[in-house]
Amino acid sequence: MDTRIIQQAKELSERIIRQAGAIARERFDQIGQLEAKGDFGDIVTEVDHLAEAHLLRHIRPAFPDHQIHSEEAGSLGNESDWLWLIDPLDGTNNYAIGLPVFTVSITLMYKREAVLGVIYEPMTDRLFVSAIGEGAFCNGKPMAMRSSPHLLKGNVGWIQGHAVRNDERAVRLRQFIDLRFKRMMRLWAPTLQWCMLAKGDIDGIILYNSEGDDLYSGLLMVREAGGVVIDFEGNPFTGMREEPYIIACHPEHREQLLRIVREGLG
Amino acid sequence: MDTRIIQQAKELSERIIRQAGAIARERFDQIGQLEAKGDFGDIVTEVDHLAEAHLLRHIRPAFPDHQIHSEEAGSLGNESDWLWLIDPLDGTNNYAIGLPVFTVSITLMYKREAVLGVIYEPMTDRLFVSAIGEGAFCNGKPMAMRSSPHLLKGNVGWIQGHAVRNDERAVRLRQFIDLRFKRMMRLWAPTLQWCMLAKGDIDGIILYNSEGDDLYSGLLMVREAGGVVIDFEGNPFTGMREEPYIIACHPEHREQLLRIVREGLG
Repeated sequence: MDTRIIQQAKELSERIIRQAGAIARERFDQIGQLEAKGDFGDIVTEVDHLAEAHLLRHIRPAFPDHQIHSEEAGSLGNESDWLWLIDPLDGTNNYAIGLPVFTVSITLMYKREAVLGVIYEPMTDRLFVSAIGEGAFCNGKPMAMRSSPHLLKGNVGWIQGHAVRNDERAVRLRQFIDLRFKRMMRLWAPTLQWCMLAKGDIDGIILYNSEGDDLYSGLLMVREAGGVVIDFEGNPFTGMREEPYIIACHPEHREQLLRIVREGLG
Repeated sequence: MDTRIIQQAKELSERIIRQAGAIARERFDQIGQLEAKGDFGDIVTEVDHLAEAHLLRHIRPAFPDHQIHSEEAGSLGNESDWLWLIDPLDGTNNYAIGLPVFTVSITLMYKREAVLGVIYEPMTDRLFVSAIGEGAFCNGKPMAMRSSPHLLKGNVGWIQGHAVRNDERAVRLRQFIDLRFKRMMRLWAPTLQWCMLAKGDIDGIILYNSEGDDLYSGLLMVREAGGVVIDFEGNPFTGMREEPYIIACHPEHREQLLRIVREGLG
């Protein structure tokens, strides 16, 4: 693995992700009222499209041999050990209803492992960056996971895939988690939840079968901030999986959270 | 009721609420990392205190005969038909964990009915204003409730009081709502949810025994945007109640939402 590639990718990503975020920020809640309400979906689609186009326009010529996977454009380029995952607007539903909780996410994978994650939150102007082995940063400051003395009084994020809906097993676990912790946080913007975990603002995340271009940047962020990322069997979560089930937390909370998830699954 | 008082109160509130919001915005997520994490609670308390002090400093001399109820200061002034309710930071928990979802809220009550509601969202610079009989506005644009063709595919807000926790009846209803709608939104910043409902961004709100200085500005906002506000028996919700149970929605969704709540309560 050529670490100079990661360095170049990082520098490029940091620059263009801010510009993509600005596209979303400028159009945020520009829906006016009443008459324009029907066009809401169109604006979200336009932002998705413009932000993605901006990112691809810069990444493709800079790394012509790399493969890219992006929301609208699908798969671009020849097969390669290097794969970019682009999510131009994570938190689409929030964006659509004028809730300022959304991000842009760029991930670079090498042989199916994340080596670079860059996430930008336009409304707060926070840039989250992690490169493998180099730690994780928020606006240049190092992030570190929190070990809370009272995990159950804490804040645990819940993320589930679109297709999960009211799957019986998922509902059972979700309701169990909701009753056990002070707050179960469902932001509908997974990348931001991963960043909040890495930053020590929340105490854990439980992810139930949610795959997508928004996942791996966040996982790298958490690992590089000192967190553990395991599956529901307690094994390290590695690579890319089509149906991921994940527990992520500070190493000290590993056993407790695993036990709670197992109990919740019944 | 002297409507000139409401007009004066509105002009003053619009001005000072932005300044109070700026106090919160400037200190948002200034926690740095690691070393300062222990001081987090202190920063939130400081913001609460500074924002409240700023509001009181202007309201008290302008309306010396009015009563004021505020979070830290408690009850100020002699008993009066005019009562101000001040919530200098609604969404404290979000603020504390760096989630940009919080507001400042000012309500003016006359004989226990809200006549003015002013809510400011610092991170998006949105000012929501409603005076009785004059409609509701977001940054000067009129707001109106949405009637969705498919309510169950919509977004319904859930608000519950701090003391409710895992009260059995509340949990039953909450879980029922969660399974019936596409999204049950728990923002932990009630005033913003009321504004989103008034603005047509979400489809309804169900509130379970949550009283506080953050409630009545939002209710006025929704009524003035054309919404209905009823209790769980279907009666209009009026005045101030110590244990409020509320359904709020577009008039066309009244029966359906009332039926769902009754079903959910079992």
